[in-house]
Amino acid sequence: MNNLIEKIDKKLEEYMVIKYPESIFKSMKYTVTLPGKRLRPVMCLEACRVLGGDIEKAMPTACAIEMLHAQSLIHDDLPCMDNDDFRRGKPSNHKVFGEAIAVLAGDALLSFAPQTIIEKSQLPAQTVVKVLHEFVSAAGAHQLIGGQVVDIESEGGKYGGKYGGKYSEKHLENPKETLKFIHTNKTAVLFKLALKTGAIIAGATQEQIDEMEEFGQKYGLAFQIYDDIMDEIATFEELGKTIGKDKEVGKLTYVTLYGLENAKIKVHELAKDIHKITDKYNSEIFNSIIDKMVAKIER
Amino acid sequence: MNNLIEKIDKKLEEYMVIKYPESIFKSMKYTVTLPGKRLRPVMCLEACRVLGGDIEKAMPTACAIEMLHAQSLIHDDLPCMDNDDFRRGKPSNHKVFGEAIAVLAGDALLSFAPQTIIEKSQLPAQTVVKVLHEFVSAAGAHQLIGGQVVDIESEGGKYGGKYGGKYSEKHLENPKETLKFIHTNKTAVLFKLALKTGAIIAGATQEQIDEMEEFGQKYGLAFQIYDDIMDEIATFEELGKTIGKDKEVGKLTYVTLYGLENAKIKVHELAKDIHKITDKYNSEIFNSIIDKMVAKIER
Repeated sequence: MNNLIEKIDKKLEEYMVIKYPESIFKSMKYTVTLPGKRLRPVMCLEACRVLGGDIEKAMPTACAIEMLHAQSLIHDDLPCMDNDDFRRGKPSNHKVFGEAIAVLAGDALLSFAPQTIIEKSQLPAQTVVKVLHEFVSAAGAHQLIGGQVVDIESEGGKYGGKYGGKYSEKHLENPKETLKFIHTNKTAVLFKLALKTGAIIAGATQEQIDEMEEFGQKYGLAFQIYDDIMDEIATFEELGKTIGKDKEVGKLTYVTLYGLENAKIKVHELAKDIHKITDKYNSEIFNSIIDKMVAKIER
Repeated sequence: MNNLIEKIDKKLEEYMVIKYPESIFKSMKYTVTLPGKRLRPVMCLEACRVLGGDIEKAMPTACAIEMLHAQSLIHDDLPCMDNDDFRRGKPSNHKVFGEAIAVLAGDALLSFAPQTIIEKSQLPAQTVVKVLHEFVSAAGAHQLIGGQVVDIESEGGKYGGKYGGKYSEKHLENPKETLKFIHTNKTAVLFKLALKTGAIIAGATQEQIDEMEEFGQKYGLAFQIYDDIMDEIATFEELGKTIGKDKEVGKLTYVTLYGLENAKIKVHELAKDIHKITDKYNSEIFNSIIDKMVAKIER
């Protein structure tokens, strides 16, 4: 797995070339190359490999998904959004480059990611269109952005937060449904995208692609609950970002809605379900990703 | 031409469906459907037509370019950017929907535009990839975003502005080159994109595509100079946006750099050059677009 992360980091470094005007390229590169676990690109490459594909052909897509992830972090951290000053232990993008450049860097990444897929993938045009279709659908208002919208709008009301209940009542008539919408669209979407596109590039069957989507959906839910648990039990040093914020702004999370113990139980259940899908691949990488997450909430 | 604008407006209405969560879809639709001249989509369709193509096949791309244009307006108007409260005579997007949703609506449009090209174009996969490649290249840091970056960073220094000269010295060592970079990348890029993709969809030769690019480049420069002239001589009612701002923030424009009279002369020269390219097509629409612009600066 470390080998794969190194490969991805090297490729990201190669793709993120600094040109004129430097500030924007530096800003894009800053967040994309922040050290991280590269979970999404790793899962994309591994899905491609276990389904018989060539991971070199999936590399541009894997990196594009990491760029999309970085884009969402840059814009989520903005003062008008979650207003976070830190990300992965470093000052957030707008703290370094200013708000204007941070907004534009996010915008530029949203185009640079598909551009990378188009220019660097050695794939037939039909496959490129399929991959791009998955990519832009995932990134848009129906999924990633929609999830973020409901997330920020459901702060407030009995959960406090900056919208002071202006939108929250509409969303929170059924908080469990709202939460599932947010987790599916804000979090699971990028894991689904990674696993599905990996499968598509490998030339997998529709059944295999659907199974990878299910894996991504379940993993995404588990990951978000894990993330919410960590916000409660971890330290700043461990997470590299502001912690305890969910409670402070009264955010709707699995932990605030169901309690910490139930959240842990849910992660265990989801991990078990995921293993039912992935065990047949005997993938060290998939196993490690799932099991490390479970281990961390049980220290 | 009015007929074509109506067709485009109808298609935009059709594409911009409101789903859950409503705020984001309404915000996207708000700016995309603000009444406008639809210059870019009109030019895309007309380039396709004069080169023997079927304009129905170019319609999704034409509309996608209008979405990209709207995206750039939404983000340009943000408080951290140009901080404009009005656009086309209406409150800007963030004034209606708040900053968070305005940022996200811009993001969502950057994905929805290529999604529309993929889902609605009845074109072979290879053509779709070509069109998407032009689209994402134009939208990115090398072009549209790069132009906007240099534009905001070159405010300041002897030109005043919010960066107070922090970046401007670097850019303004050669203000004429800087200005050309901004006009080429911030303004001409969308006209070039419109005309080139129209030509590509028509199945034009490389020579014809290149000629359309030259048309777009020259028209873009003329249009931006025209826009700067209007900022000096027009009223709020005519433009539907805050006027006289360029002078106020000490913005680098053709007018502030070369003077009003030279700016007018330049527009005339460019219009003449463009006619050399377009006259062979006998296009009422191209002629009208070019000549109306020239007439307006000479009232």
